[in-house]
Amino acid sequence: MSIADWNSRIAPLDEAAMEAARARQAVLTKPAGSLGRLEALSVQLAGIAGRCPPPIPARKAVIVFAGDHGVVAQGVSAYPQAVTPQMVLNFLRGGAAINVLARQAGARMVVVDAGVAEPIPTTAGLVQGKIAPGTADFTLGPAMTRTQAVAALELGARVAREEIARGLDLLACGDMGIGNTTPSAAITAVCTGALVRTVTGPGTGIGADALRHKIAVIETAIARNQPDPTDGLDVLSKVGGFEIGAIAGAMLAAGEARVPVVVDGFIATAGALIACLLAPTLRPYLIAGHRSQEPGHDIALAHLGLAPLLDLGLRLGEGTGAVLAFYLVEAAARILNEMATFAEAGVSGRAD
Amino acid sequence: MSIADWNSRIAPLDEAAMEAARARQAVLTKPAGSLGRLEALSVQLAGIAGRCPPPIPARKAVIVFAGDHGVVAQGVSAYPQAVTPQMVLNFLRGGAAINVLARQAGARMVVVDAGVAEPIPTTAGLVQGKIAPGTADFTLGPAMTRTQAVAALELGARVAREEIARGLDLLACGDMGIGNTTPSAAITAVCTGALVRTVTGPGTGIGADALRHKIAVIETAIARNQPDPTDGLDVLSKVGGFEIGAIAGAMLAAGEARVPVVVDGFIATAGALIACLLAPTLRPYLIAGHRSQEPGHDIALAHLGLAPLLDLGLRLGEGTGAVLAFYLVEAAARILNEMATFAEAGVSGRAD
Repeated sequence: MSIADWNSRIAPLDEAAMEAARARQAVLTKPAGSLGRLEALSVQLAGIAGRCPPPIPARKAVIVFAGDHGVVAQGVSAYPQAVTPQMVLNFLRGGAAINVLARQAGARMVVVDAGVAEPIPTTAGLVQGKIAPGTADFTLGPAMTRTQAVAALELGARVAREEIARGLDLLACGDMGIGNTTPSAAITAVCTGALVRTVTGPGTGIGADALRHKIAVIETAIARNQPDPTDGLDVLSKVGGFEIGAIAGAMLAAGEARVPVVVDGFIATAGALIACLLAPTLRPYLIAGHRSQEPGHDIALAHLGLAPLLDLGLRLGEGTGAVLAFYLVEAAARILNEMATFAEAGVSGRAD
Repeated sequence: MSIADWNSRIAPLDEAAMEAARARQAVLTKPAGSLGRLEALSVQLAGIAGRCPPPIPARKAVIVFAGDHGVVAQGVSAYPQAVTPQMVLNFLRGGAAINVLARQAGARMVVVDAGVAEPIPTTAGLVQGKIAPGTADFTLGPAMTRTQAVAALELGARVAREEIARGLDLLACGDMGIGNTTPSAAITAVCTGALVRTVTGPGTGIGADALRHKIAVIETAIARNQPDPTDGLDVLSKVGGFEIGAIAGAMLAAGEARVPVVVDGFIATAGALIACLLAPTLRPYLIAGHRSQEPGHDIALAHLGLAPLLDLGLRLGEGTGAVLAFYLVEAAARILNEMATFAEAGVSGRAD
């Protein structure tokens, strides 16, 4: 399948199911609108599922894609690159934040090597999908070839389709990759038109001098590579990352299968920007899980027309904010499935 | 026990456990501070429990107190008073929003008649605690006697202690009472010193003219009764409600037993204002579950120094926002209990 086919393979939401959901919300035993965003979310879920009420999402998964970034040679991160494979092993042993939150959510967790620089021993549970041992330093040229960008998208789509085949009602994509707020800021600047300095933040925690340097690095990369903001594959290949491309591919596969996707933080949202450039039809399948502390995240979400469900000052990635928000998505579906109507409960309506 | 004893019966949080929680957060496999509010919440939970890590809250309950308000005679609500007992029956049959969300949270739900105007048939599961069939119209005099105010507090404390005796790690208090944003706005204005018009909102959904009338009604009530903003019992008796007093009492009993309390919306926060006037030592046991759409809620929360975990545009009450936030409280405890440290996982620290 060609990349160009994605847009036509993702169907619009089901308007009749959404209208039925709106009508049902209006007769449930509560003042109309009093469940706020949960009501709008329930309507979206009905539209995605194509039925009202939508299913309560019982089968949940988070796919964490890991990759390294040649641009770390420019000194853009507070942590050494060795942390990427170390954290992959931590994911596989169950000790990371995303493991804790996925267990709490009852979500399956899949860990994928999309392009970690060091070899990772074949360890139980790791999906081997290494496109290359890290991207190239994008201050010197494209981060990856166009062929590699397509491979990253296809990797994400393949892993997501495997999860969908196992049965999947709700998906989140997480990331791990030292330095990956740098390509995410570059993607966000290119796709939204915002200034690099407004979308670039401290990531895992660099100081003010290092932040100025990081901004200059990203400006250099964009000036050198001239990514085309209308071409998702061009943006991904020139200033992206393997895990970011895989996240985009997984989101596209979910949209194709009518599975709602909860978007995580800054890196996952950079993946969503790429995915929505490739297929604008994906957009209504996305739910913004949370607002990251990284300053570019709000700009990326606003560009996509997404409002985050949670705002807890998280800046960890891994899918943590998205998996926390699974609970709210499930609540929205449960409300529409389980609440009594005014008529069923014998409750009076408004006095006026 | 005298009301005056509450303050001395609630112990301060355990500083050593909080310091241990801060130290542990710093060595877990994530950048320091990257879990944002979940980290601060885990420290609070450790301080409440008096140990680090704190227990994962498995035993949860929401107690919903129902009461009616004489001031509805002044036309302050969009719904007829008959809805209060109808919704109580809906709670007992499992069809309301709080039932759905309590089931999702795995929380026990207790429904208490604290002062519903109409008789409610003795129905399975209802706790009969009616102080009186609704408060008096507080535009004409005090909403209740001082004796009734004490009885409301004691009712809430008694029901909470019964739940604590069954085993309880996390409590929320919900409300049902047509018209109860009116006493809540009065309490908020008195306790915070804010203008009535800044803390009064549309409640279940009245129009602009009715809102102006509601503001005038509350101003009249405060001018007539002159509640003493330093005396919680005076405020409760003059402009409160039976369910609001019971909520305050339940919160105090939870603090006494070192059980964290997730505060719901505007009405529950009015209860928290009363409770914290009676016992300022309660404050560190409170967690703000969500920000209500009712405009006075933010003012009440700020007065208590609480920042809400969720901001979903809810304005339903019943404990719905608090019970949704149980999930985040549990996540905070799980993080501290279950994540690996850098040393355990063999993950490198910062490069600098």
